[in-house]
Amino acid sequence: MAEKKRKKLAIVVESGTLDKLYCAFILASTAVSIDMEAHLYFTFWGLTMLVKGAMDKAGLPTEYKHLEGQLAQKLKQMRYPTPYEMMKRLKPTKLLHIYACSPSMEMFGIKREDFIPEVDQIAGAATFLEIASGADVTLFI
Amino acid sequence: MAEKKRKKLAIVVESGTLDKLYCAFILASTAVSIDMEAHLYFTFWGLTMLVKGAMDKAGLPTEYKHLEGQLAQKLKQMRYPTPYEMMKRLKPTKLLHIYACSPSMEMFGIKREDFIPEVDQIAGAATFLEIASGADVTLFI
Amino acid sequence: MAEKKRKKLAIVVESGTLDKLYCAFILASTAVSIDMEAHLYFTFWGLTMLVKGAMDKAGLPTEYKHLEGQLAQKLKQMRYPTPYEMMKRLKPTKLLHIYACSPSMEMFGIKREDFIPEVDQIAGAATFLEIASGADVTLFI
Repeated sequence: MAEKKRKKLAIVVESGTLDKLYCAFILASTAVSIDMEAHLYFTFWGLTMLVKGAMDKAGLPTEYKHLEGQLAQKLKQMRYPTPYEMMKRLKPTKLLHIYACSPSMEMFGIKREDFIPEVDQIAGAATFLEIASGADVTLFI
Repeated sequence: MAEKKRKKLAIVVESGTLDKLYCAFILASTAVSIDMEAHLYFTFWGLTMLVKGAMDKAGLPTEYKHLEGQLAQKLKQMRYPTPYEMMKRLKPTKLLHIYACSPSMEMFGIKREDFIPEVDQIAGAATFLEIASGADVTLFI
Repeated sequence: MAEKKRKKLAIVVESGTLDKLYCAFILASTAVSIDMEAHLYFTFWGLTMLVKGAMDKAGLPTEYKHLEGQLAQKLKQMRYPTPYEMMKRLKPTKLLHIYACSPSMEMFGIKREDFIPEVDQIAGAATFLEIASGADVTLFI
């Protein structure tokens, strides 16, 4: 009872574009920095970004495709970490939890061994909803 | 007072693409399966999907258009229900509530009689916000 | 202690398209109309819409580009306010709070003096998460 209960951020990451991945990991990093737990549930296009090598190839959505080179250059100049670097830096804190959506794996023919090692758990939407029900902030990105 | 209060999921469905419709209805189905209420408020492109026959024609967003055939084949092979089939299966549980955004109806020239019969209520954003204020999980899809 | 605590709506506005801006401001307007606070945190493409003159040029996403003229005409006929008009009308209530994401400003080379005067605060994601943690409804648009 004396134990402090941490606040929780729960995000469905449905998108697989660079801007949205940044949003998810900037929010997760910020959450961890203020001692919140961050639970990220990857589904659909987001799920495909958990495949080894995929996240570093993420691009911008059609509307903003023409800004890709400019943004990449700016981020390099700012020495801004990539989404995958942010994910890796957060793992040792034990406050970031990465879930891979099991039905999406079947839809896209992705297997457990295809994933980066940072994936904590393969789970269905019930796992997400149970975590989200007890979370302080819930978002769909 | 002895009555059990159900947890609630409240979603704004703004998107009209197949991936997002799946997300909305997979979350709604999962919510219902763990005895939560699911409240889906359809607006903008999402609203246009409540017109009879529209949901079955939903496609993928521009970025993923080329995967449409492949995904359709995979879903068929998995015998995965369509979003509309999921909606119809959930209705008898009385835990799924479908709202149609009234200002969007005017913007898109959609009339009540154009809708599928599963629509429960035509409502403004105040109705959604009141439900969402008391919900455990709120998402914008 | 006798003071009434207002309910809060907290939205990350990541999108810069007209449909999503309408969603954000219709929800904000509705929140204010039922005496809720509305906190809108603009990031990425949303952030670029806080630059003077930008919001009035917002268009529809690629999938719906062909409907732009038709929607504009309908909105005019409905005498529907633009997103920026909605924002301006809400400011005197003191219930709408507009935040500009500081890392996005650097990514896009946007300076404080580029913004419309309705921006209340330049802030990082921690500010948003703290507000969102105490909010009743949290959405990512």
